[in-house]
Amino acid sequence: MSRAHESTVAKLAVIPGDGIGPEVVAEAEKVLDAATAGTGIRFDKTRFSLGAARYLETGDTLTDDDLAAIAAHDAILLGAVGGVPGDPRLKNANIERGLLLRLRFALDHYVNLRPSKLYPGVPGPLAAPGDIDFVVVREGTEGPYVGNGGSIRTGTPQEVANETSVNTAFGVERVVRYAFDLAERRSKKLTLVHKTNVLVHAGGIYQRVVDAVAQEHPEVAVDYLHVDAATIFLVTNPGRFDVIVTDNLFGDILTDLAGAVTGGIGLAASGNINPDGAFPSMFEPVHGSAPDIAGQQKADPTAAILSVALLLDHLGLQDQAQRVTRAVEDDIAERDGASRTTAQIGDAIAGRLQA
Amino acid sequence: MSRAHESTVAKLAVIPGDGIGPEVVAEAEKVLDAATAGTGIRFDKTRFSLGAARYLETGDTLTDDDLAAIAAHDAILLGAVGGVPGDPRLKNANIERGLLLRLRFALDHYVNLRPSKLYPGVPGPLAAPGDIDFVVVREGTEGPYVGNGGSIRTGTPQEVANETSVNTAFGVERVVRYAFDLAERRSKKLTLVHKTNVLVHAGGIYQRVVDAVAQEHPEVAVDYLHVDAATIFLVTNPGRFDVIVTDNLFGDILTDLAGAVTGGIGLAASGNINPDGAFPSMFEPVHGSAPDIAGQQKADPTAAILSVALLLDHLGLQDQAQRVTRAVEDDIAERDGASRTTAQIGDAIAGRLQA
Ligand SMILES: CC(C)[C@H](C(=O)O)[C@@H](O)C(=O)O
Ligand SMILES: CC(C)[C@H](C(=O)O)[C@@H](O)C(=O)O
Repeated sequence: MSRAHESTVAKLAVIPGDGIGPEVVAEAEKVLDAATAGTGIRFDKTRFSLGAARYLETGDTLTDDDLAAIAAHDAILLGAVGGVPGDPRLKNANIERGLLLRLRFALDHYVNLRPSKLYPGVPGPLAAPGDIDFVVVREGTEGPYVGNGGSIRTGTPQEVANETSVNTAFGVERVVRYAFDLAERRSKKLTLVHKTNVLVHAGGIYQRVVDAVAQEHPEVAVDYLHVDAATIFLVTNPGRFDVIVTDNLFGDILTDLAGAVTGGIGLAASGNINPDGAFPSMFEPVHGSAPDIAGQQKADPTAAILSVALLLDHLGLQDQAQRVTRAVEDDIAERDGASRTTAQIGDAIAGRLQA
Repeated sequence: MSRAHESTVAKLAVIPGDGIGPEVVAEAEKVLDAATAGTGIRFDKTRFSLGAARYLETGDTLTDDDLAAIAAHDAILLGAVGGVPGDPRLKNANIERGLLLRLRFALDHYVNLRPSKLYPGVPGPLAAPGDIDFVVVREGTEGPYVGNGGSIRTGTPQEVANETSVNTAFGVERVVRYAFDLAERRSKKLTLVHKTNVLVHAGGIYQRVVDAVAQEHPEVAVDYLHVDAATIFLVTNPGRFDVIVTDNLFGDILTDLAGAVTGGIGLAASGNINPDGAFPSMFEPVHGSAPDIAGQQKADPTAAILSVALLLDHLGLQDQAQRVTRAVEDDIAERDGASRTTAQIGDAIAGRLQA
């Protein structure tokens, strides 16, 4: 099935991953269960043990069998992957590329959806943040992330190392269309971010496609910012943004910065979405595996829990999605700076859904 | 001459440019004159009328003759270039590429030096900025800026647009060596910023070169950040940085953000440096031409004036450079929020040098 409401059982692949991944995923599952309890919707979960730990045990990052098994699900919930930085045994592993990016590319997650919202009461680094509530629609399957590079004479004084950003009208148009549709449902404002004055070709195709699709959306106000200028506005006037559409690399940078200005990536959720439904979409917090605090119940599971809201929304379960979002907002509103364990935060949010 | 102290006359090419460029350059020249008055050092200035205005008149951006004439100078002072955004007559011009980037590449400005300092009393967007005082050493002649791209079937649904980042051991090593030398003279802390987990080849060469050069600088503490994480630290803990070395594109992004967190790019200076002295180095404010406020005496010339300090320092005139920096710091310390014209700020800073 592609939409859970067509059925009562949705098949969910759960990839807890490394570091704090398992801890935050446990809370996300708790909230998912609470949000769907008594609704007739049930998630049939399969756990996949993937990440640095698995690599160290077996030498595998993501086998073709893993991929096929995961692809047979309706959606994926992922915690975080990545081992301890500098671990010599992981030197040649690149878990990020082999696992996370491989999943995004193989499952054609061409929309990497990253909402940024400053919730009332959340402390952030800006003195006068104003109202922050925008969504970055980051392209997920092209651009500088394609892995189309190489080096010659590697490690010698004559080395040349190239890396090619590949962008297609097919790939750009589908993500730009998604962004315009989203803008129609929000404030009808869309900002293209790129670096057209330098990356003439990679930027040019984005500009051309946005100009063309804009014709079909006369009510959406469109503007353009170079990526360097966009980072300035993210700290001086983030309220100016509503929907941002950008490429894979610029989207990576802007969403980490956006996470920081909205109180830290402990709150930033994301969806790696295949809108066509040909493959399962994958939901994950923007943060990494943070091995330094793993297993200590110090991680904030909120980003993982908000990713569950995106997952529910994607599966057509808008009511449940909104209930999760509201429970998180209520929890955040009552935070008083007292420290809580990962499980305590998850319990508190799940508790609001049971009430 | 490559160092002004070897002679009493330094040949300076002045490119005021477009928009607010001429206004801020006028103040920068005023301060340059004041800083060198009575020292026996004289700047012999040639003005080059380049930028959007020249393009609209003649169709030329930067001719080979312009380039040869500019190259015969000891240093270059540039205001800002770029016409009014959306001007249809500039549609195919790309003044940035044809002028600014052409100068940087042709004059082998392989170090793009961009100091970031939060001066006491300067209002910025961060609630608790802490002590900010770091320098970004941005590579200036390689990476995604090489213009090594193209598209096929342009404008059709079958378009493919590629853009290749080209990085060489030669190019990376020289900028990394410069950064280590700078770190030796500062706090002995160097951060490499890249995206090695995704841009495996372009990032790999930077990591390898930094690892190798670090062997020769055992007293410099070296760390590494992915570019996305670096943007987070720039707003949550900018004080952690001292010397950052990074590629052309990441340097572009980080320095605009750094300018914003240190009170706006009205204060951010930069040097496009050819450390070998084979070509003249070029000094310019990080900000653009801001055509919307041009000719209104609203622009802050401080970034252009601080660029003069970098110019003096590069020419071996450390005393004069320090006097300019101090005059700017004193001026900033006494700012009370009252608005001053561009010329009033320039006069005030020049006045301190005459006193
Ligand atoms: C881990 C890394 C490959 C990944 C990315 O660059 O996309 C991460 O930074 C993210 O934003 O999800
Ligand atoms: C104008 C543009 C080409 C330039 C760059 O990208 O280098 C500018 O943003 C800068 O940082 O000097």
